[in-house]
Amino acid sequence: MQPWKTLSRQTILNYSKFLTVEQHAVELPTGQVIPDWPWVVTPDYINVVAVTEDGRFLLFRQTKYSVPGTTLATVGGYLEPGEEPLTTAQRELREETGYAAPDWLALGSYAVDGNRGAGTAHFFLARRAYPVAAINADDLEEQTLLLLTRAEVETALAAGEFKVLAWTAVVSLALRYV
Amino acid sequence: MQPWKTLSRQTILNYSKFLTVEQHAVELPTGQVIPDWPWVVTPDYINVVAVTEDGRFLLFRQTKYSVPGTTLATVGGYLEPGEEPLTTAQRELREETGYAAPDWLALGSYAVDGNRGAGTAHFFLARRAYPVAAINADDLEEQTLLLLTRAEVETALAAGEFKVLAWTAVVSLALRYV
Repeated sequence: MQPWKTLSRQTILNYSKFLTVEQHAVELPTGQVIPDWPWVVTPDYINVVAVTEDGRFLLFRQTKYSVPGTTLATVGGYLEPGEEPLTTAQRELREETGYAAPDWLALGSYAVDGNRGAGTAHFFLARRAYPVAAINADDLEEQTLLLLTRAEVETALAAGEFKVLAWTAVVSLALRYV
Repeated sequence: MQPWKTLSRQTILNYSKFLTVEQHAVELPTGQVIPDWPWVVTPDYINVVAVTEDGRFLLFRQTKYSVPGTTLATVGGYLEPGEEPLTTAQRELREETGYAAPDWLALGSYAVDGNRGAGTAHFFLARRAYPVAAINADDLEEQTLLLLTRAEVETALAAGEFKVLAWTAVVSLALRYV
């Protein structure tokens, strides 16, 4: 199997650091050329499932613009320019929860949209998390830190209470290692 | 917790049925107004993990523009206008694999991007799948149908071989019910 070739790319919307849209001309292995393939550039991000020594999952109840009502959420955030995903993950865990952890497992990196790009999601499991500092989050959303049991997390996952794709993904992956 | 309010919305890029970009003015519960929140409109889609009576998972090896090399993939596709997610799922299973199934479990619906929208992903598990027709897919990508064992799926999942976020999500969710 051969990959598609990018023949050219032009920016058609340069909105902000949060969103750029490009138009690509792509050539398929058949020789077919698609001259106007839309491609979305958004920042890469991390999500972290953090679990304390006594098996509590550090999660949030919060609002989020894309979802109705409230949702359960994981630690998460965008990579700063040049930042390594693990560094972002450790920074965001500390900022959003006030916890640190000595034991980090990478759960993979995934294209957010198989067709349009939309950045890469990097997932981590942080084990033996412990409190080290006060919460220092800069998120725009209201959020409340929760310490849930594994059974509570599994019930919430099955009920679809993690309403954002990346959160349900990282939680279901992390449960395989906890 | 109160939701953000959408005060106004305007289309800033009307590219195609696959991509529209809007700018929203949003008001936070604090009263703060963000006048230029970008919002991405892409079609809702489904993904299906289908498992045969004898426990084989119907998956693909394929290329995808957003990922390097090849990737494992699930059945998936965009909803047609007005189409119910389950109908799309059943249609795509038949078109892409030639299989049907009598036993469908909804695995939830998720906002693809918590901040920008980017549509909703609807996930399904189809059990007791059986062949009924020839493959009749209209996908642009090269793909090969595979019948993997549960152990093979778990090994691939752990190795990050489902390289697109929705696929790793639906596979890890589905494994909880198989």
